Amino acid sequence: MKYNYVPLKNVRIEDSFWSGYDKLVRDVVIPYQWEALNDRIEDAEPSFAIRNFRIAAGKEEGNFEGFVFQDSDLAKWLEAVAYSLTRHSDPSLEAIADEAIDLIGEAQQADGYINTYFTIEAPDKRWTNLTECHELYVAGHLIEAAVAYYNATGKVKFLDIVSRFVDYIGNVFGTEQGQIQGYDGHQEIELALVKLYKATGEAKYLQLSQYFLDQRGQEPSFFVEEWEKRGRSSYWQPELTGEKSRPDLKYTQSHAPVREQKEAHGHAVRAVYMYTAMADIAAQSGDAGMLAACHILWDNMVHKQMYITGGIGSTHHGEAFTFDYDLPNDTVYAETCASIGLIFFAQRMLQIEPNSEYADVIERALYNNVIGSMSLDGKHYFYVNPLEVWPQASEGNPGKHHVKSVRQKWFGCSCCPPNVARLVASLGEYLYTVSESELYVHQYIGGTASASIAGQHVELRQETNYPWDGKIDIHVSPERASSFTLGLRIPGWCQSATLRINGEEIVLGEVVHNGYARMERTWRKGDIVQLELNMDIQLIQSHPELRANAGKVAIQRGPLVYCVEEIDNGAPLASMTLTTNSQLTARFDPNLLGGRMVIEGEGMVDEPNDWGNCLYRPLSASSTSKPVKLVAVPYNSWGNREPGEMTVWIRTANTNTI
Amino acid sequence: MKYNYVPLKNVRIEDSFWSGYDKLVRDVVIPYQWEALNDRIEDAEPSFAIRNFRIAAGKEEGNFEGFVFQDSDLAKWLEAVAYSLTRHSDPSLEAIADEAIDLIGEAQQADGYINTYFTIEAPDKRWTNLTECHELYVAGHLIEAAVAYYNATGKVKFLDIVSRFVDYIGNVFGTEQGQIQGYDGHQEIELALVKLYKATGEAKYLQLSQYFLDQRGQEPSFFVEEWEKRGRSSYWQPELTGEKSRPDLKYTQSHAPVREQKEAHGHAVRAVYMYTAMADIAAQSGDAGMLAACHILWDNMVHKQMYITGGIGSTHHGEAFTFDYDLPNDTVYAETCASIGLIFFAQRMLQIEPNSEYADVIERALYNNVIGSMSLDGKHYFYVNPLEVWPQASEGNPGKHHVKSVRQKWFGCSCCPPNVARLVASLGEYLYTVSESELYVHQYIGGTASASIAGQHVELRQETNYPWDGKIDIHVSPERASSFTLGLRIPGWCQSATLRINGEEIVLGEVVHNGYARMERTWRKGDIVQLELNMDIQLIQSHPELRANAGKVAIQRGPLVYCVEEIDNGAPLASMTLTTNSQLTARFDPNLLGGRMVIEGEGMVDEPNDWGNCLYRPLSASSTSKPVKLVAVPYNSWGNREPGEMTVWIRTANTNTI
Repeated sequence: MKYNYVPLKNVRIEDSFWSGYDKLVRDVVIPYQWEALNDRIEDAEPSFAIRNFRIAAGKEEGNFEGFVFQDSDLAKWLEAVAYSLTRHSDPSLEAIADEAIDLIGEAQQADGYINTYFTIEAPDKRWTNLTECHELYVAGHLIEAAVAYYNATGKVKFLDIVSRFVDYIGNVFGTEQGQIQGYDGHQEIELALVKLYKATGEAKYLQLSQYFLDQRGQEPSFFVEEWEKRGRSSYWQPELTGEKSRPDLKYTQSHAPVREQKEAHGHAVRAVYMYTAMADIAAQSGDAGMLAACHILWDNMVHKQMYITGGIGSTHHGEAFTFDYDLPNDTVYAETCASIGLIFFAQRMLQIEPNSEYADVIERALYNNVIGSMSLDGKHYFYVNPLEVWPQASEGNPGKHHVKSVRQKWFGCSCCPPNVARLVASLGEYLYTVSESELYVHQYIGGTASASIAGQHVELRQETNYPWDGKIDIHVSPERASSFTLGLRIPGWCQSATLRINGEEIVLGEVVHNGYARMERTWRKGDIVQLELNMDIQLIQSHPELRANAGKVAIQRGPLVYCVEEIDNGAPLASMTLTTNSQLTARFDPNLLGGRMVIEGEGMVDEPNDWGNCLYRPLSASSTSKPVKLVAVPYNSWGNREPGEMTVWIRTANTNTI
Repeated sequence: MKYNYVPLKNVRIEDSFWSGYDKLVRDVVIPYQWEALNDRIEDAEPSFAIRNFRIAAGKEEGNFEGFVFQDSDLAKWLEAVAYSLTRHSDPSLEAIADEAIDLIGEAQQADGYINTYFTIEAPDKRWTNLTECHELYVAGHLIEAAVAYYNATGKVKFLDIVSRFVDYIGNVFGTEQGQIQGYDGHQEIELALVKLYKATGEAKYLQLSQYFLDQRGQEPSFFVEEWEKRGRSSYWQPELTGEKSRPDLKYTQSHAPVREQKEAHGHAVRAVYMYTAMADIAAQSGDAGMLAACHILWDNMVHKQMYITGGIGSTHHGEAFTFDYDLPNDTVYAETCASIGLIFFAQRMLQIEPNSEYADVIERALYNNVIGSMSLDGKHYFYVNPLEVWPQASEGNPGKHHVKSVRQKWFGCSCCPPNVARLVASLGEYLYTVSESELYVHQYIGGTASASIAGQHVELRQETNYPWDGKIDIHVSPERASSFTLGLRIPGWCQSATLRINGEEIVLGEVVHNGYARMERTWRKGDIVQLELNMDIQLIQSHPELRANAGKVAIQRGPLVYCVEEIDNGAPLASMTLTTNSQLTARFDPNLLGGRMVIEGEGMVDEPNDWGNCLYRPLSASSTSKPVKLVAVPYNSWGNREPGEMTVWIRTANTNTI
């Protein structure tokens, strides 16, 4: 692995945009989610997560409740807590986390096994339905949490607990006589084991990760054999019997060996978690076949199956990818967790090679889909992140019941809220990578980072009002004058930029490589790099094969995708048109949703008058449209006022001809 | 009832457009469907219909197979046979039908009961799950078939069989002690009983129909009570237990008394079959509340929930209506049977009042959705009639699996094919209504009709090349000079028309009332009325609330809705635009699909070039479109060449402004 991200403890975020989210996660989201895990949120679906652990630990009587993977919600919350504690000491929060970790330890079985569902409900059924029951997935989240907590606090208890669990797993799974030659239906442990390897230096954990990836998709199918063994039945759909319950191997990305997969298929979160682990293994081992597969899968996903918001997985049937260019806006899925997994994958690819497309996708997913999934109060969440909402259809058309028009307090399957919390709390890990002689800046977020480059300690400070403004000042402070390369990402959306070092302009065309302005020089304390990215408002169109967006444009400014909402523009939004010569201007409104850049301009709206009782009628001179003021807000901020229609893609009358 | 349709035996169709369909039904569809009912179609889903009757009759061993309502397929086929025999003697077909009727008689139980599912599988469960198991629905189809067969052949055997069945039903259901105070989950018997009443003159059948309608939706709910009695379970979804299996009363239009229903809800076929019976009862009894409900439901359905093709029911979830203006083109349902039921309802309304909107809707549904559901070879059918098809999405997006891109040979649930057959075979019943002093022509189809008006026998002969041509000559021949009113429908789509009697022009504005040109005069043998309807090509737009069609137009000429297909226009069709000043011309192509009017003109197509690996990019001067030849074919003929994309609604650049 050539590049490492600058670890969280060495990155401080002091940013006009992100400090607010950071504080929200610390002050509101983490405490709120602890209440949720303890079933103390009124009128919200209960979690049962803590209760299940208490029952498994013998501290309470009762049955397991919730999904089989419910333990993972506590694990993800603990991981978020760990990231928060890394940067902000909070003894009382740490005490709560310690207690939760004690509880996990008490629920651990004598042989190291942890899983409240199987411990409470089916102790004799362990490892009999890997396809459907998420045992290793839950283990993976516990591992991630334990590594994060160890890194944050230096305390080893949680790490010891999960190491004991993983050592047991390592005995259960393998190619030897008596071992299960299998893997989990929901990938997660693979990437977690790489983290455990990095935290402990134990190569066996890396090998176990590689083992799970290598086994996946081999013939004969482990999942099919397992299904035969359990008498051809399904945990999730007990009404299906015989052949009808046969596992869909594409759904779990086990239809082919991972190195041979060419297209993103199946459950989107599983896919990107797997790709993340594949990139980890490629980075660790230099496995060229694995890296090639990562490139192919990345290309397919990002260039053919990704929404403009960075959402992936376009159908709620199996929370899955469908096929190239099939990205409907209204029946969309675009699960929050899937975009988070996409960010993980991109981050790992940046550890292999600095290519701005990875950082562009992190930015796209982060600034749009991911933070848009959470309300500004930090207490309501989208699981599904639509690009077009008609509230009546969400209620009245069963094909859109999954598309909520308002964020929910909690979910029975509540994977997304703690996933957002852990991502935002660890955001520092996504900003910079360093190698022996290079330091790359991937995201423009105010604050400081310190890293060791070419044997020197280097401090770097970003000052910016991004994403509202394209000016970024970067102060470079090596301990001593020091020669290394500083790379600044020139975002893919940016049509023009200027770059200055200590006031002197650099010709970008001469230094940009793979999307980064690479400045190789001797850096001295007090050096300042000034990047200015043009943030003109852009109308974005889609590839012609993406039928859902034909004749439509989206508004984008910098990394932010915009949308129009009923509250600003009336309804139906489908009556509104942007013309190619519409003048749009950006204006920062300090009173809107805590301060947002709004985009205003003149659109056209179809005249609704004179329809009477008529549903269809000839288009005629009486079919007119009239100018109307159009107001667009960042997609990430929609749905924070009153419920109503929303759309990202707006009809356009593009009248260019050749 | 003021108006009666001219009965089938008095109408002869000799028409350039319809005689072909008529012959197809006689020569191909009816024989083909007989093979299907006998499970003799290779590679098609088996019907089991005949086999079930043979088992129930004790002539064969085995279990019941297929859906609980499988008997109705045989009934609808017999009804189609009856209509065909009414107009075309065919002793060998009649012999087959007689045998099938004998078989039904042999399957009838001692008490009169007929239903092969319950007879074979659950004789002790009769009438225990009216909500879900279609016993009275199947009875209704047997009644309709028997009445039609009696009218066609004069033979009473089948009529006797069903009368015995209905007399038994009349004992089972009612308000007296020991009777079931209920009704069926799938309406059908209500309209059938009105036919039985008309055929037999027995008022008790009319009363039973009204009883079922009056009971429906009363509190406490019969369906909920039945569900309680059977231990809160569901026949169709046995995996649902307790509260989750509670019947959805809107689905079966039993959420409110029928006279109080204001919007079309639930399963679309059930809805329109019920509305048909409601109109029948309103016509028979003069029940003003019932008629008012018919008007309200008609208005809601036709002005807010109907596709331009006459399709209704926009979601496959429950084959149901959703809500006003929710008419997505790609996830559409628009079941063939629902449009047929809509035609039934409209026909009954025409028996109450001559209002051209009813006949317009019959025309719209018939010429587009209904005949479009059948392939030109008569052997393949659509159940779902989409307005937009992307074959890859039908395969690859589970939300569109129900939208087939090619017609199927048969269906496990094969309600639609025999329904088309019986409608086309009885088309004559939809053309004319008569009263004491009026004769209305609702549909322009060549051929003759004879009726008795003002005590006179009147012959009427239509000559036309409709729907390709708007000229209709109507020869009126009363026995003797006779004074009555002749009403000719001026279709809602028609922007201008001329009317002549014996060469002399009539000022239409002076004679049109409720959409009919009403000519009250003394008619003499040899009188000729010449109507010429302007058939200019029209671009049709949708109400602004119908979001799915915003910025799009459909092409219509006369009653025919057009569509564009990939085979003529390439793909993706979403790249194509019509401009408001596009010149479109109609040309009859005798070689296309047996002779079709094609519409050709200039459209624009977005340039697909230079996208490379890019999925989104700024709209710029390089985003161009270029002129392209556009070819549209009648929607009813799509999918008869090679599979590919199809769309009815085409993007438009309407640049009218005020």
